[in-house]
Amino acid sequence: MTKINHAAARQIVTQALVKARELDLKPLSVIVLDAGGHPLAFEREDGASPGRFAIAQGKAYGAVMLGIGGTAQMQRAEAQAYFITCANAAFGGQLVPVPGGVLVRGSTGEVIGAVGVTGDTSDNDAAAATAGIEAAGLTAEI
Amino acid sequence: MTKINHAAARQIVTQALVKARELDLKPLSVIVLDAGGHPLAFEREDGASPGRFAIAQGKAYGAVMLGIGGTAQMQRAEAQAYFITCANAAFGGQLVPVPGGVLVRGSTGEVIGAVGVTGDTSDNDAAAATAGIEAAGLTAEI
Amino acid sequence: MTKINHAAARQIVTQALVKARELDLKPLSVIVLDAGGHPLAFEREDGASPGRFAIAQGKAYGAVMLGIGGTAQMQRAEAQAYFITCANAAFGGQLVPVPGGVLVRGSTGEVIGAVGVTGDTSDNDAAAATAGIEAAGLTAEI
Amino acid sequence: MTKINHAAARQIVTQALVKARELDLKPLSVIVLDAGGHPLAFEREDGASPGRFAIAQGKAYGAVMLGIGGTAQMQRAEAQAYFITCANAAFGGQLVPVPGGVLVRGSTGEVIGAVGVTGDTSDNDAAAATAGIEAAGLTAEI
Repeated sequence: MTKINHAAARQIVTQALVKARELDLKPLSVIVLDAGGHPLAFEREDGASPGRFAIAQGKAYGAVMLGIGGTAQMQRAEAQAYFITCANAAFGGQLVPVPGGVLVRGSTGEVIGAVGVTGDTSDNDAAAATAGIEAAGLTAEI
Repeated sequence: MTKINHAAARQIVTQALVKARELDLKPLSVIVLDAGGHPLAFEREDGASPGRFAIAQGKAYGAVMLGIGGTAQMQRAEAQAYFITCANAAFGGQLVPVPGGVLVRGSTGEVIGAVGVTGDTSDNDAAAATAGIEAAGLTAEI
Repeated sequence: MTKINHAAARQIVTQALVKARELDLKPLSVIVLDAGGHPLAFEREDGASPGRFAIAQGKAYGAVMLGIGGTAQMQRAEAQAYFITCANAAFGGQLVPVPGGVLVRGSTGEVIGAVGVTGDTSDNDAAAATAGIEAAGLTAEI
Repeated sequence: MTKINHAAARQIVTQALVKARELDLKPLSVIVLDAGGHPLAFEREDGASPGRFAIAQGKAYGAVMLGIGGTAQMQRAEAQAYFITCANAAFGGQLVPVPGGVLVRGSTGEVIGAVGVTGDTSDNDAAAATAGIEAAGLTAEI
């Protein structure tokens, strides 16, 4: 697969939420972005706070725009805070550099989008995102 | 129903797209916002342009924030353009005042959210939104 | 071709400028955006004013984000000015809806990016963009 | 040379990328700005993430607007973070204060523009920028 189509985006969201219920996580919000950082699908579970769209989007947007997952972004933020602060401003304030922003790689290894999950701990968010991506037959990079 | 829950939001999106395929419309994008104007669910069909999230969101956001559907917003824009221009600025540029932004009313008549659809003619967009809302047992106001 | 690669982007810019010199146009600025609206290549000729990057980008950005070329955007702006005004705000003020924003379609007809040209009349700008796109073996939609 | 003309801007970009391939760097993005901080030329190599335009621009923009290269900006950021934070806000969030933003000085020593490179380590980015600037017969200040 060289791009995330509509069916795959739905599957990623649905399976990320299935995983969340298996793990009994707090209510999650899940977004799927295309290779240009534009939304393909989003869902917010009952009980999630209303600002969760922006957090999910920011996690995924930073991943796809910088080409690095949330875990690596967090490491960069901890090593060189001002770089991430400035990159955030350069992207219009749309960066949320923590785990739960997960790159999606296609069959030839290229980045074809990203998934953003928020609501539980960052590591659990990333686990749900990864489950969704892998259920769609794609490769996750946290 | 006094609020749009996750299951209803999914149903609205799914059934709006079922209607779109029945009517053979162009590829659509569909968003469901809650009573505070915050995203609950979104999907973009294959072939829709990447900017369709912002258009769908703007249609629904104006509806819920002003409490009037896209058709009535368009009439206001044609009668008093400067009002809509200024309201748009007051809302941070998030208003798209044309049909396809459809209010969702609950069982006691109160506004509980809005649906935004974009991709075909504005009237067809509104028809798809209405089909989704009614399939979820709710009342649409275009 | 299913995406505009680096070599194609360079070719589009170079050949658009070759066409501009053949037609003895005023100094041009030419941008190539990918399918997500992100810059791949840009050049500004000597004598072009410094703000031409933003104009070229806006022409191409609106084309790719809405999935319609500058000529069709201009017609929509003339028929329903407030829609284009509001779409512009929804896209952060990055829309310049006149000819010279030209869609690029790939071998299977899908939109794979856009070219924005500014500096001469809008129609001449579009002619230069089209020449560049066609020289790269791609299809232009003005 | 008292300004970076179109031919020089092209040469800087081309030669920076030639150097990048010699050094086997990761895919780079290269921008050339004029003495007013406005884009003259930009190219993004295949495989670079879509947000690299903003990073390259921010590196070069801060250099030309403050009149100091990225290395010196980074030292300032590490010594006095709030100054860079506030300068960034004053410049509309367009500052990325790390190596890879390189000043271009003309034949009489005055600043005539800046080059921004991103994609590999900051030091390798600066090396590619310097190679491009020197290939055009100009003086680089990292």
